[in-house]
Amino acid sequence: MIKAGIIGATGYAGGELVRILTGHKDVEIKWYGSRSYIDKRYAEVYQNMFQIVDDVCMDDNMEELSREVDVIFTATPQGLCASLVNEEILSRTKIVDLSADFRIKDVETYEAWYKIKHPTPQFLPEAVYGLCEINREAVKGARLVANPGCYPTCTTLSIYPLLKEGLIDPDTIIVDAKSGTSGAGRGAKVDNLYCEVNENIKAYGVATHRHTPEIEEQLGLAAGRPVLINFTPHLVPMNRGILITAYASLTRDVSDEEMKAVYDKYYSGEKFVRVLEQGVCPQTKWVEGSNYVDVGFQIDPRTKRVIMMGAMDNLVKGAAGQAVQNMNLMFGLKESEGLELVPMFP
Amino acid sequence: MIKAGIIGATGYAGGELVRILTGHKDVEIKWYGSRSYIDKRYAEVYQNMFQIVDDVCMDDNMEELSREVDVIFTATPQGLCASLVNEEILSRTKIVDLSADFRIKDVETYEAWYKIKHPTPQFLPEAVYGLCEINREAVKGARLVANPGCYPTCTTLSIYPLLKEGLIDPDTIIVDAKSGTSGAGRGAKVDNLYCEVNENIKAYGVATHRHTPEIEEQLGLAAGRPVLINFTPHLVPMNRGILITAYASLTRDVSDEEMKAVYDKYYSGEKFVRVLEQGVCPQTKWVEGSNYVDVGFQIDPRTKRVIMMGAMDNLVKGAAGQAVQNMNLMFGLKESEGLELVPMFP
Amino acid sequence: MIKAGIIGATGYAGGELVRILTGHKDVEIKWYGSRSYIDKRYAEVYQNMFQIVDDVCMDDNMEELSREVDVIFTATPQGLCASLVNEEILSRTKIVDLSADFRIKDVETYEAWYKIKHPTPQFLPEAVYGLCEINREAVKGARLVANPGCYPTCTTLSIYPLLKEGLIDPDTIIVDAKSGTSGAGRGAKVDNLYCEVNENIKAYGVATHRHTPEIEEQLGLAAGRPVLINFTPHLVPMNRGILITAYASLTRDVSDEEMKAVYDKYYSGEKFVRVLEQGVCPQTKWVEGSNYVDVGFQIDPRTKRVIMMGAMDNLVKGAAGQAVQNMNLMFGLKESEGLELVPMFP
Amino acid sequence: MIKAGIIGATGYAGGELVRILTGHKDVEIKWYGSRSYIDKRYAEVYQNMFQIVDDVCMDDNMEELSREVDVIFTATPQGLCASLVNEEILSRTKIVDLSADFRIKDVETYEAWYKIKHPTPQFLPEAVYGLCEINREAVKGARLVANPGCYPTCTTLSIYPLLKEGLIDPDTIIVDAKSGTSGAGRGAKVDNLYCEVNENIKAYGVATHRHTPEIEEQLGLAAGRPVLINFTPHLVPMNRGILITAYASLTRDVSDEEMKAVYDKYYSGEKFVRVLEQGVCPQTKWVEGSNYVDVGFQIDPRTKRVIMMGAMDNLVKGAAGQAVQNMNLMFGLKESEGLELVPMFP
Repeated sequence: MIKAGIIGATGYAGGELVRILTGHKDVEIKWYGSRSYIDKRYAEVYQNMFQIVDDVCMDDNMEELSREVDVIFTATPQGLCASLVNEEILSRTKIVDLSADFRIKDVETYEAWYKIKHPTPQFLPEAVYGLCEINREAVKGARLVANPGCYPTCTTLSIYPLLKEGLIDPDTIIVDAKSGTSGAGRGAKVDNLYCEVNENIKAYGVATHRHTPEIEEQLGLAAGRPVLINFTPHLVPMNRGILITAYASLTRDVSDEEMKAVYDKYYSGEKFVRVLEQGVCPQTKWVEGSNYVDVGFQIDPRTKRVIMMGAMDNLVKGAAGQAVQNMNLMFGLKESEGLELVPMFP
Repeated sequence: MIKAGIIGATGYAGGELVRILTGHKDVEIKWYGSRSYIDKRYAEVYQNMFQIVDDVCMDDNMEELSREVDVIFTATPQGLCASLVNEEILSRTKIVDLSADFRIKDVETYEAWYKIKHPTPQFLPEAVYGLCEINREAVKGARLVANPGCYPTCTTLSIYPLLKEGLIDPDTIIVDAKSGTSGAGRGAKVDNLYCEVNENIKAYGVATHRHTPEIEEQLGLAAGRPVLINFTPHLVPMNRGILITAYASLTRDVSDEEMKAVYDKYYSGEKFVRVLEQGVCPQTKWVEGSNYVDVGFQIDPRTKRVIMMGAMDNLVKGAAGQAVQNMNLMFGLKESEGLELVPMFP
Repeated sequence: MIKAGIIGATGYAGGELVRILTGHKDVEIKWYGSRSYIDKRYAEVYQNMFQIVDDVCMDDNMEELSREVDVIFTATPQGLCASLVNEEILSRTKIVDLSADFRIKDVETYEAWYKIKHPTPQFLPEAVYGLCEINREAVKGARLVANPGCYPTCTTLSIYPLLKEGLIDPDTIIVDAKSGTSGAGRGAKVDNLYCEVNENIKAYGVATHRHTPEIEEQLGLAAGRPVLINFTPHLVPMNRGILITAYASLTRDVSDEEMKAVYDKYYSGEKFVRVLEQGVCPQTKWVEGSNYVDVGFQIDPRTKRVIMMGAMDNLVKGAAGQAVQNMNLMFGLKESEGLELVPMFP
Repeated sequence: MIKAGIIGATGYAGGELVRILTGHKDVEIKWYGSRSYIDKRYAEVYQNMFQIVDDVCMDDNMEELSREVDVIFTATPQGLCASLVNEEILSRTKIVDLSADFRIKDVETYEAWYKIKHPTPQFLPEAVYGLCEINREAVKGARLVANPGCYPTCTTLSIYPLLKEGLIDPDTIIVDAKSGTSGAGRGAKVDNLYCEVNENIKAYGVATHRHTPEIEEQLGLAAGRPVLINFTPHLVPMNRGILITAYASLTRDVSDEEMKAVYDKYYSGEKFVRVLEQGVCPQTKWVEGSNYVDVGFQIDPRTKRVIMMGAMDNLVKGAAGQAVQNMNLMFGLKESEGLELVPMFP
């Protein structure tokens, strides 16, 4: 039985980790960390866990935690994991960091976009970017995994095959993203009140969202050269789900069949990436509650562009589910263990 | 491996049966019946099942079906199951009927409220009302189980202990119910369009809803005498969930502790009924996607009434989940097999 | 031109006052009071008012305000208006108080339910409860109007005629209410976050909600004797709208026609109360954005009870619209001036 | 008093026309045409109009209608207006056609995208594309106005100034659009059921949506040469509102101030186009119920692109409101008459 600790267990991503790990046959949660709710019963914070979780919330002590558990999940804002981690801790326990701290290899880029100094850049080289479908082997041997951001996961998986195969021009990529509100977290802010979000849609962080450099780094690795993109997230009145609609110019004429074959080449063996049939557009509702990413595409012969689409549950494949997928790989378990979640509809 | 057939597999309750049975380790679905989508691939009707279910939809042939499967679920409108079932079929296979056909023992009451003639009243005596928490032993031996309606499940479980113990006056019961829209089914009607339901709430079927006599029969069994209630359902702009708020006059002074003890007496051993702590009101979101019913209460010393509250997922405990719970009992499986679904929040 | 000042102009009710008064041909808003946003441009707080309102937010100075305006609206939490008002102010200006401070004539009841000491009970006798349809004449001569609460408005108007005519037993009244989330205000609380409210319904304040004594006082006036009720509000995932479903035992056999005639007797001359045709249930969406209350009823001959239903927009007839209706009466204007708002659908 | 007739009065756009015209002091609706509800009282179809509209629904007879009214609004699917209109009718009455029939000047393009033969192409030359802010003078003299589509209105107004001034490269325009569900109409289809739309987002009509050529024609007029774009609409779980997010490469370095000045040059005198302050992103909620289009932009110096954003209410400025604006111009009324609708928030 793998012993797990969660730092930030009362945020939405942390709550989803608890939901998933509760159903994971090889894992036992030993530590529900939550600075805001120390000593409060977890099930009082998340009443859905009543009679399922009996524990109380603990503090953030990663030092102590590393002596008690085999794996630590940090589901906290940027900066926390990087400020707590050290060699000693990593020598005792594995870490899956759901924050952005170790996602971007280039520390200057990180510091420029996040506007904080990285306290432990020495761990950046060994940290593995945990996009399992692309970095599977590296994840298996990692002590420290940087769990990808929600938008970067959905975007990268939707674009990666075409970029890798040279079918699209890296200089023309535009990503228009739409996210449910759980992505904004559980902090009490006027902007996230029901009445402000309901019956409303808006773009935010236009040309400045921090997931931009993370996406660019991943796409750059696929393209084999630096890539700059436009990335525009939107807030959608729904709890869960991310849909990305990406645009790029084709480098040559491509048929639907060829395009589909390229996606299949990369994903036909992947359980969690479903390449939809030609002409089917992904919908967030079709993946809700599951670890799937659904990808689809549409070629526009008039403009010689391709529209790439991807849908996933931001709290599962975009956060907690992928974190567990990474953990499974790190501990030599079946990759889909605990993640055989059938999407819930309606 | 139990072989199961579903008639009405493309309605919302049928879809939920597929979701749950897909994760049930002892069951294999052999027949996806759907008159509207014969020969269409099931995953085209419910895209969430893409790469999970490969079968195509079949017709309604219960005769043929009964030769191929061990259990038939009928998730169809009232009248269908009763018109298809016969002794031969029941001698070969077990049936869990999610429709109202065999829920009400008194055939005249059924015919008066449903305005159809019951085609096979001869099976009414043997049909077991599948409210597992109350009729567990009878369900175990049944060939034909009438799966309770959504509102009756939530209402009966919320009121039953107090009525059974004589704490409330049966003549004063008023049930004000609120349901998500999936309860209205997947039929294409203007009233159920997004724009008609969203940002709206209304009562419907006031004093005439067909679940009324079903609730009254069950409450009458608990009270030991006929019970008439007021039952008012409302349509709420959400997909899933039923909340009932019931009112009754107390027959004597009762303390919070005593009231709680009465609920615990009936439910402390029940996995799927969670008696909330004193002062906590049930919320539908806390049970979404799971087979739980959360019940709570509030005594009003000013009016000498008690307010009883219950919340559940109408598609799970109110339909497909309870149907699987019944199947588990009928086949001697662990009652919670395939139903260890952790509620999803948010 | 009537000069108006609003204290609490940046709450949801305050914002609705601005929306309505902006379209009122006889009124000019001179003061946008908002402690939280002093010196900020109002249109930055409520971007819908961009290029419509150019003013900046001011403080709460009722003293100064009373020298500048003809009428003050206080759209603030309980306690504020009562603590600021004095004889001098009232001698200079009229006040429509949207808080609860002057709604309940019995100061002990107020203090018991609101748990604060009433600072200026001397004004309670002269304050007029501004339910225009019932207290029209008194409002016309008032200096200080207590604008009714949202639930009390909808509840009282739905029940009043039957109680007044003795058709229902006052001891059997149960009110089950459902409200959109704007009723909870614009404060940043976790409970009101989008993800907590969406896809969810719950009761709150069960047997303890502060609108209970206000409703009881009004119903008591109609009944001619003290009335105790059960009142249970619920939070519904929508922005606007209140629906009340009320139950009471009939004192004698009543036909649909007679019941309808009783409602018509009270409301046929009332512009803002629409008595729906027999068998039509009110829906909140049909009154959204308008000052209407739609009322309907259903007699249940089985239980000898009547179900009374009422729907309105909580921010309009339940707050700002009724406040303007009161102002119109107080200043001798046409009662519906500025309130000819056609409900918006969908 | 202008007499108006509406063909298609019971669709959502037709209903909105009724709402707006009911509040228009110079117009009287004489004909509520609705093939589906002939002889039914209009207020039974749209209960919000109870006690406001007493008329019953009529058939589609444009011939007869043209003898009774001064202006006909056709809020019907494509093909109907074009098949009914003739010279005689146009000699007697003015027409504002809310369908696509006369929007696209090139009949072959119309027929290719709409897959129907245009029955009366002879009226295409005289039909005026009723985007008031751009074609104001032509509208004033028109007998037949083609009311622009919802997406084209929002898109064209958001992009027009930059294209006209040569600041963006016409070959790089990508429009990612998001619409509330009322845009899909009131037809009873499974895809538009509450449970299918709620908690979901999807793209549809990717690279094939019929508003594409309409947008291209308008942008082509601004650019002075043919323009091909990518246009991807998405269905958002909300009733009303369109947000467009458009991308284009800048033709040269442009500062924020210069960009803002260009928008102001075109719109500072326009009541219904609000150019937001630098850094403010449009939100659909801020214009709900009103005739405003809010436009904003963000320059991305990294990619040398500009992101153009526009928000409006699809049923008002995107349909009925703009139709009334056109009517006002055609009859020499104040352009904003009946359209001084303050956006409703929340």
